[in-house]
Amino acid sequence: MGLRLLLPPHNLRRQPWALLLLLVGSLVMCSTASAGAGIEHVQKTMDMDVVLRLSGRPANMTLTAFRNFTYQQTLDHFNYLPSSYTTFPQRYSIDFTHWGGAGTGSPILLYTGAESALEDELAGVGYHVHAAPALRALVVYIEHRYYGLSVPFGSPAAAHKDADTLGYLSVSQALADYAEIIIHIQKMYNARGPVIAVGCSYGGMLSAYFRLKYPHVAHGALSSSGPVLYVNGNLSSRREYYDIISSDFMSISVHCFQTIKSSWAEIDRINRQLGVGELIRIFNPCKPFTDVNPLKNYLRLEYNRYAQYDDPASTPVRRFCRGVDGAPVGTPILERIKAGLDRIHGQRCHNIAAARVKAPGLSGWGWQTCTEIMLPVGPGGGPQSLFEPWPYDFQASRRWCMRKYHVEPRPQWMATAYNITEALEQFGSNIIFANGLRDPYSDGGVLQDISPSIVALTTQEGSHCLDVAYPRPATDPQWLIDQRNEELRIIRGWITTFHSSFNPRDDQ
Amino acid sequence: MGLRLLLPPHNLRRQPWALLLLLVGSLVMCSTASAGAGIEHVQKTMDMDVVLRLSGRPANMTLTAFRNFTYQQTLDHFNYLPSSYTTFPQRYSIDFTHWGGAGTGSPILLYTGAESALEDELAGVGYHVHAAPALRALVVYIEHRYYGLSVPFGSPAAAHKDADTLGYLSVSQALADYAEIIIHIQKMYNARGPVIAVGCSYGGMLSAYFRLKYPHVAHGALSSSGPVLYVNGNLSSRREYYDIISSDFMSISVHCFQTIKSSWAEIDRINRQLGVGELIRIFNPCKPFTDVNPLKNYLRLEYNRYAQYDDPASTPVRRFCRGVDGAPVGTPILERIKAGLDRIHGQRCHNIAAARVKAPGLSGWGWQTCTEIMLPVGPGGGPQSLFEPWPYDFQASRRWCMRKYHVEPRPQWMATAYNITEALEQFGSNIIFANGLRDPYSDGGVLQDISPSIVALTTQEGSHCLDVAYPRPATDPQWLIDQRNEELRIIRGWITTFHSSFNPRDDQ
Repeated sequence: MGLRLLLPPHNLRRQPWALLLLLVGSLVMCSTASAGAGIEHVQKTMDMDVVLRLSGRPANMTLTAFRNFTYQQTLDHFNYLPSSYTTFPQRYSIDFTHWGGAGTGSPILLYTGAESALEDELAGVGYHVHAAPALRALVVYIEHRYYGLSVPFGSPAAAHKDADTLGYLSVSQALADYAEIIIHIQKMYNARGPVIAVGCSYGGMLSAYFRLKYPHVAHGALSSSGPVLYVNGNLSSRREYYDIISSDFMSISVHCFQTIKSSWAEIDRINRQLGVGELIRIFNPCKPFTDVNPLKNYLRLEYNRYAQYDDPASTPVRRFCRGVDGAPVGTPILERIKAGLDRIHGQRCHNIAAARVKAPGLSGWGWQTCTEIMLPVGPGGGPQSLFEPWPYDFQASRRWCMRKYHVEPRPQWMATAYNITEALEQFGSNIIFANGLRDPYSDGGVLQDISPSIVALTTQEGSHCLDVAYPRPATDPQWLIDQRNEELRIIRGWITTFHSSFNPRDDQ
Repeated sequence: MGLRLLLPPHNLRRQPWALLLLLVGSLVMCSTASAGAGIEHVQKTMDMDVVLRLSGRPANMTLTAFRNFTYQQTLDHFNYLPSSYTTFPQRYSIDFTHWGGAGTGSPILLYTGAESALEDELAGVGYHVHAAPALRALVVYIEHRYYGLSVPFGSPAAAHKDADTLGYLSVSQALADYAEIIIHIQKMYNARGPVIAVGCSYGGMLSAYFRLKYPHVAHGALSSSGPVLYVNGNLSSRREYYDIISSDFMSISVHCFQTIKSSWAEIDRINRQLGVGELIRIFNPCKPFTDVNPLKNYLRLEYNRYAQYDDPASTPVRRFCRGVDGAPVGTPILERIKAGLDRIHGQRCHNIAAARVKAPGLSGWGWQTCTEIMLPVGPGGGPQSLFEPWPYDFQASRRWCMRKYHVEPRPQWMATAYNITEALEQFGSNIIFANGLRDPYSDGGVLQDISPSIVALTTQEGSHCLDVAYPRPATDPQWLIDQRNEELRIIRGWITTFHSSFNPRDDQ
């Protein structure tokens, strides 16, 4: 992949942590499961106050521009059992501010909601901020079924009760949900223009799938940081995700890299020689832990996060390493790690033992990773790795899923139904796969063009979903502005083609 | 559409009646329902002896070349309820005769099984007879779920018991079935070449959908006589299907056309003046009927069939009209109709009152037309029509479906999920939509190119599925040979592109 990580500028910027951390959770879960250690299902989202501390919200949020609606959605689109006719209230939001208007052929910009509640995702996404005025687009966000309040059976708790109620949570059902709601909106508002799906991370996978499976509904897709290649049915452990994290840290500071790399054995040594109390003293957890696993999980997840969101403004990798490297000469390894954490979170207790799912409404992503979205990623260890070896083990994951949900994974289904790259060179059109190469998830992303109009856009400095986050014109680096402009240029081309090919009499 | 129906040659030829009559059945059902008359669900297939009398089987059937296999298929692919993990034995057949062999990149010719049992369909299809040797293709036929013996719950009767067991019968599930089995076959036999889906009528719809939804599995599709435009969500009654039937008869004999056109009122007059006994005397039904509706249904279905399969060899329209027109001067109208029927069926009792579903295993198509495959077709009447006006009435159909299956139709679903023409000019590739313009179903077919590689092939003289029926080199007219050659030329192009683009190291 040829990563050449450049040092980024140091200005602070907002990060969409709240909505984008979820895939990491699954990775850590699987890794933990595979090691046979205490199974930790990492909490899906960080506490909101942590997010705010980490990111700094943009001042110009347009959340208030959105109006919320509800659609009575069919429980199961693909069979005709009487039980499938049940409906549930699915939420969607529309921002009419910049729309060209009914009958004008102005486009619809559709955020394909992912694994978070509507409010959290709307607070995080920002692509429309620059695209909607430029395109005179209607902006639509659709909440993914089983997240937020878009749940069947009356409540999040009921929806997430067990396999009999969670069973309807699947990618196929979610895509059909989008299709029904978009067609409903098109009729309701006489919105006849092309639909451009936009999503990031899991939502980026969905936006690409939506274009491929519902091309008569979605006329193009901007798929940002969607690791679609991870779900192609290959279950052999891939270390590259973690190697990119290692490379990110190495590019910032060799000393920091070495400190982290040494810390795992040091944790074991102190635990063995001095006991877990000494680790608790060093790391100041908000709740005490009883063995090294929660601590190692926490640290691994932190490094995942820093690398995933190592954008040129907030630079968490750099900030963490400043803490590590800036500690006084002679500071021991684990105290240096703690100094790095403090640089990110402040000198307060660390939420180490809280890495568990707390509420039933939050377990949707765990279910999805246990049924169809297998992410076969695990640290490989070795001299170039920050991490202890911890290969992905499908059978261990499977056992975890059977215990947790009583569900049998179908690891080949996504490849059967949604294989992106297999012989698609002659098929389909109008998808941008955008990836930042500092993002470990870029390992699972499409980094080369599939066809003349299914294209890969990569940036050396980009991190997870950076291109679809809120633009900050005053501080965005030129390469990021260039990336967004290129995306907009391509999308404009799709829209022009749509109007010339399909709606020659549209008045726009 | 500019039908210019030419008089066809008169040689006899086999017709694939057994597998292709089913759509007609649904049309008649809906028409009957819409008229509020006695609801008749026309039997799905004609008796086999009738088929043989009508068609004359080809002498060179290769049914024996097929080997039968079973795949344990997932009951529901799109949700993860525990009940969905049930499997059922799905049948498929392979003809290895002409295959280039494992690892050669030789293609797979996949018949997308439709609404009949494996044996019946294999006896009817014949496209592979000329294509498999030419392409060195592996030929695969997959039986559609809920037909033949590919049923869940242990038996056809159990599978077709009620909505709780029939609920898993849907287009989406059937396509996923194909995908799983083809991927299984590819692995099993190291069959790495491109997959070309072939189907006719409903099976032709499925082959096109399969290419569009599983482009990584199916690399092209020959969709013969698939009325994909009927399921685009427009529920206003379309008379064109019946107008084409009228045009077919008119092109053969104005006198015959006028005789049929007059017969409906004559049936009513005789029933009114002389009673149903006189109609029974005239038409010699195998079982007596008690009012005019079964008789009118039977005749309407007969005319549907003659027009649908009015191929240049067996020419049922011409044969029927010879009977009508050849009766002695002064023969009354209904006796002329009877003479036409006798010309087709022989002078024996006519199976008029048998037009009902008899066995549970045969009700699959009724279920499908009651859930997602609405065919909004009904006679419009008028001077150019053979038929009494009888417009399609969705609400009447819906009431019928609620009574029969306790199922609520979802008439917009096919348009939501499988809309073929909406804005697809930039999307997809490698589909041939073949239609014969003597076939009334051509009204619901794609008759114009959608894109450079999603093309329409029409023949003025062609009838339903003629191009994919058994070739008869000795007697096939040149335009039919030309059509098949053109299809093969296009498919060869797909295969060449597949090998140059995707498998440059294949040894074929």
